[in-house]
Amino acid sequence: MTEPAPRRRGRPSRTGDDSGPGARERILEAARTQFAERGYDKASMRGIAKAAGVDAALVHHYFGTKDEVFAAAIEVSFEPALAVPAILGAGAEGIGERLARYFIGVWENPATRAPLLAIIRSALTYEAAAKVLRGFVLRRLLERVASELDVPDPTFRAELAASHMIGIAILRYVIKAEPLASVDTEEIVKLVAPTLQRYLTEA
Amino acid sequence: MTEPAPRRRGRPSRTGDDSGPGARERILEAARTQFAERGYDKASMRGIAKAAGVDAALVHHYFGTKDEVFAAAIEVSFEPALAVPAILGAGAEGIGERLARYFIGVWENPATRAPLLAIIRSALTYEAAAKVLRGFVLRRLLERVASELDVPDPTFRAELAASHMIGIAILRYVIKAEPLASVDTEEIVKLVAPTLQRYLTEA
Repeated sequence: MTEPAPRRRGRPSRTGDDSGPGARERILEAARTQFAERGYDKASMRGIAKAAGVDAALVHHYFGTKDEVFAAAIEVSFEPALAVPAILGAGAEGIGERLARYFIGVWENPATRAPLLAIIRSALTYEAAAKVLRGFVLRRLLERVASELDVPDPTFRAELAASHMIGIAILRYVIKAEPLASVDTEEIVKLVAPTLQRYLTEA
Repeated sequence: MTEPAPRRRGRPSRTGDDSGPGARERILEAARTQFAERGYDKASMRGIAKAAGVDAALVHHYFGTKDEVFAAAIEVSFEPALAVPAILGAGAEGIGERLARYFIGVWENPATRAPLLAIIRSALTYEAAAKVLRGFVLRRLLERVASELDVPDPTFRAELAASHMIGIAILRYVIKAEPLASVDTEEIVKLVAPTLQRYLTEA
């Protein structure tokens, strides 16, 4: 440890921008950007604090460890995905199409795509990041999706659907394989919707 | 550049294990291991040469640049995938099931899984690696697969099938989301085969 010990550890500074109701949100936003730009390994508590314009002690105060900041950043990044149970709850008919269109909308938006890709990238590279993602994806997302499904092994079915959307995102937005990288999103929805429909509704 | 210039640049050393018919294969095997263990960024021509027990000049002699070694390592790693056009050529009936079982077999085998994951990981992190993978996957794999298909937009269809298998591999072997990480491979084949069948054969 070459960095100086944080001032007033555990007690947020009360000067400047260093606190207030917006501080936690600023830290989360900075964390999301730092993890997206630098990756799990290179992002640091100190760098996140600096980007948020707060004392490093405040980051520790709100989130404890780097893994906990990462988990919170995942939660913010996956917030759109947390709407999925609501989409599923609207009934089985047309669910595959609604879900495909919704997911592709999240990936098409650079603001939501970048942190999602950063999280997948980190999880592919660092087991600590994979573990945090695994815990979040399972507990917060897939199990909630599964609770809305009337199929055998609902979590497994939700995972198959998720795997397809993750794979499409990687080939389209990262590897940029053509024509997948350039086709209209409706072309993807048209072919993928029946797959999701089958996974999520057929016994 | 702090490393010393390679001795006898472009002219392989003729001493010790430094040449002979097995040298190229040893270099490729070492490259595959180095890229798998260290990633695209940290693998170096010198490290690959050392692991192969050859002079760095020999690696340059056979492969030129790091990107070219990476491309050759991709080719070796994807060799099993190059059998896919033959699988497709056997006819449309049951093609989804044969392909799903074949792909999962490749991923189940740790010897083939590790380098494939390393390549995907590198491509997710480094645009240079993504570019090499993109070129290879498109030219050598997906276009060959597409040439066997009798559907509209055959390359797009091949990409959709590939995206699903890549996504399953990431959730099962990297993120290790349960139950997908532990289910019997036949459970996966049973559900995924009809998806691949539809993408690859239905108009």
